[in-house]
Amino acid sequence: MKLRRVVPALQCSGVSKPFIVIIAGGRGERFWPQSRMHRPKHLLPIVGSTPMLAQTLQRVRPLAPVKNIFVITSARQEKAVREVCARFHLPAANIVAEPIGRDTAPAVGLAAALVGQRDPAGVFAILPADHVIKDEAAYRRDLRAAFAAAKQGSVIVTIGIKPDAPATGFGYIRKGRAAGRYAGRPAFAVKAFYEKPNLKTARRYLASGQYLWNAGMFVWSVPVVNSGFERHAPELQAGLAPVRAALAKGRPLGPVLKKVYPKLQKISVDYALLEKSKNVIVLPAGFDWDDVGEWPAVARHHPKDAQGNVGRGRTLVEQGRNNIVISEGEHLVAVVGADDLIVVHTPDATLVCSKSRAQEIKALLKRVEAEADGARWL
Amino acid sequence: MKLRRVVPALQCSGVSKPFIVIIAGGRGERFWPQSRMHRPKHLLPIVGSTPMLAQTLQRVRPLAPVKNIFVITSARQEKAVREVCARFHLPAANIVAEPIGRDTAPAVGLAAALVGQRDPAGVFAILPADHVIKDEAAYRRDLRAAFAAAKQGSVIVTIGIKPDAPATGFGYIRKGRAAGRYAGRPAFAVKAFYEKPNLKTARRYLASGQYLWNAGMFVWSVPVVNSGFERHAPELQAGLAPVRAALAKGRPLGPVLKKVYPKLQKISVDYALLEKSKNVIVLPAGFDWDDVGEWPAVARHHPKDAQGNVGRGRTLVEQGRNNIVISEGEHLVAVVGADDLIVVHTPDATLVCSKSRAQEIKALLKRVEAEADGARWL
Repeated sequence: MKLRRVVPALQCSGVSKPFIVIIAGGRGERFWPQSRMHRPKHLLPIVGSTPMLAQTLQRVRPLAPVKNIFVITSARQEKAVREVCARFHLPAANIVAEPIGRDTAPAVGLAAALVGQRDPAGVFAILPADHVIKDEAAYRRDLRAAFAAAKQGSVIVTIGIKPDAPATGFGYIRKGRAAGRYAGRPAFAVKAFYEKPNLKTARRYLASGQYLWNAGMFVWSVPVVNSGFERHAPELQAGLAPVRAALAKGRPLGPVLKKVYPKLQKISVDYALLEKSKNVIVLPAGFDWDDVGEWPAVARHHPKDAQGNVGRGRTLVEQGRNNIVISEGEHLVAVVGADDLIVVHTPDATLVCSKSRAQEIKALLKRVEAEADGARWL
Repeated sequence: MKLRRVVPALQCSGVSKPFIVIIAGGRGERFWPQSRMHRPKHLLPIVGSTPMLAQTLQRVRPLAPVKNIFVITSARQEKAVREVCARFHLPAANIVAEPIGRDTAPAVGLAAALVGQRDPAGVFAILPADHVIKDEAAYRRDLRAAFAAAKQGSVIVTIGIKPDAPATGFGYIRKGRAAGRYAGRPAFAVKAFYEKPNLKTARRYLASGQYLWNAGMFVWSVPVVNSGFERHAPELQAGLAPVRAALAKGRPLGPVLKKVYPKLQKISVDYALLEKSKNVIVLPAGFDWDDVGEWPAVARHHPKDAQGNVGRGRTLVEQGRNNIVISEGEHLVAVVGADDLIVVHTPDATLVCSKSRAQEIKALLKRVEAEADGARWL
């Protein structure tokens, strides 16, 4: 029976199962006031009816046994993250909280340590917790292909998203020569990584057809990550040695992380490792993808009325168009004669923001922080 | 000592003191969601720190003993109106609730009945409950002049407001020949009353200098009102006979009003009496006046930040101009990158309205009413 099932290469290989490490951090700014420091986007049902983290766990669950699924979060969010993960029966030890945020490179190093303790040759995926992906079958097919690629060679595998607009909010990956096929999916060498471009450059990238968005999805083996950091970020790799030692000795991680993290450099894995590595390949994603990066993006995922308004909760729009109106609980939010607004009501704070100015929410939150009692709204 | 005080003519005349009847009704629509059916503008501190009705009572108190001050309100608002009036020690019997709204003519007829029971020749003022008047001394001086005029002749005295803009939201009064002076204030015959004009006509009225705004302030004697209604609105006058009878016999008014009111025509006193009367004079007001008819008018009475924003309660505006932002309680309302909005947060409802479209709040409330459980927000 088993032989007749269509199963991916890795599961046929007879070796260990892959690991998945979900990075669930964030500062909870862009979806304020629904998102907060202790409840950022991945803990909210920004799209759909469950927290984005739950949707991510749901999506990856068929790829690996739950004991192989880790979630790295922040101390502030740990409690809520554990509640979501409990629904998926993740072992308690698989949820690890960073005491302070140090960007993604230390988190990837921590992930390699966690996976390495279970399987020193283990292959694992680093995945964001808060993206919207509807074609789950295609997503898992691509990840299985990436696992196969990472298993076969000493490569860093990235998943690149085919751009459908000249977005300036993402990093870009430039495809190079073809680099084989994995589980039927084509792979390409990576010529270079590019940081967020300006609009003109983004248009050029889009027109050339040679660039993909960097969605922060990476697949690799523990030895590849370790040797990469040893070469390109030796201080980070050395800084995490006490973490690896604690894991090897079965000691609790909390105290070690508290001691180690403040000394680590705050740096992204793109900058610390990917941009400096030569052994990077990219698999163009065969699935839909939306990072839903700020409030205006939410409109893409909800039904609109005849005037283009999106409403969630108790809302009414009278003579207004293309508004996003969200109300928590039984509170009525009414918009009259206004267009292109984001209006979000929560029990203790309400935001009214022009759709075209959502990026200014960060400036607002700096001012909230400066209020005498501002912390309670952050 | 008494002779050396500067006292108005009426108080020197040795006859009875004047009466004041404040009309405190309204549907609570224009200042929604702060105003509601049971709590319209006059029960709110829309401008200042006390309800507009309290400010009105404060203003008229020096004009008459409290036993001569009446408030006519609606059943829905009676409880809250009584609470405000209690602070001014008005006798309980002086607050009278209409069981249903029938516009101003029946209210004036009821006022004449109430005053007539105390003093069949009594002079009384009909005054709105929710206007903003800052120069109280000038206001009282004008009212004393109006009392003097109403006392001396069989005239209907109106207070006319000198227009400073071509307003289309008020009725206008056209001044005629000079009609003497009362307590030093000039009076004029009224040539005609005009309903709310269009902008072109309003501009002509303003330019001519011959027109005044009709602010709904009338002073007259009980016999003048009674004979006026007998002549121009005999059905109304007859319809109120049971009310006068109940008052004469000292019976409770409630049951009589409940029986009588549904049969009365719904009509304004302007239409039922003033426009049809020949014996009307107007005193041009010597005081500032603002009826603060809708949310945008509120901005005139509050300090603004450097960007022209008015904030009341816990509010922040980031990169926005000329907004009015009001928050009740400790709820934070933040506006980002938006201009010319009215944002009003109350515990159970929030309004976001373009300043130029405040008149559409009525259309909104029709839709709120149509919701299955909409009544709770009205």
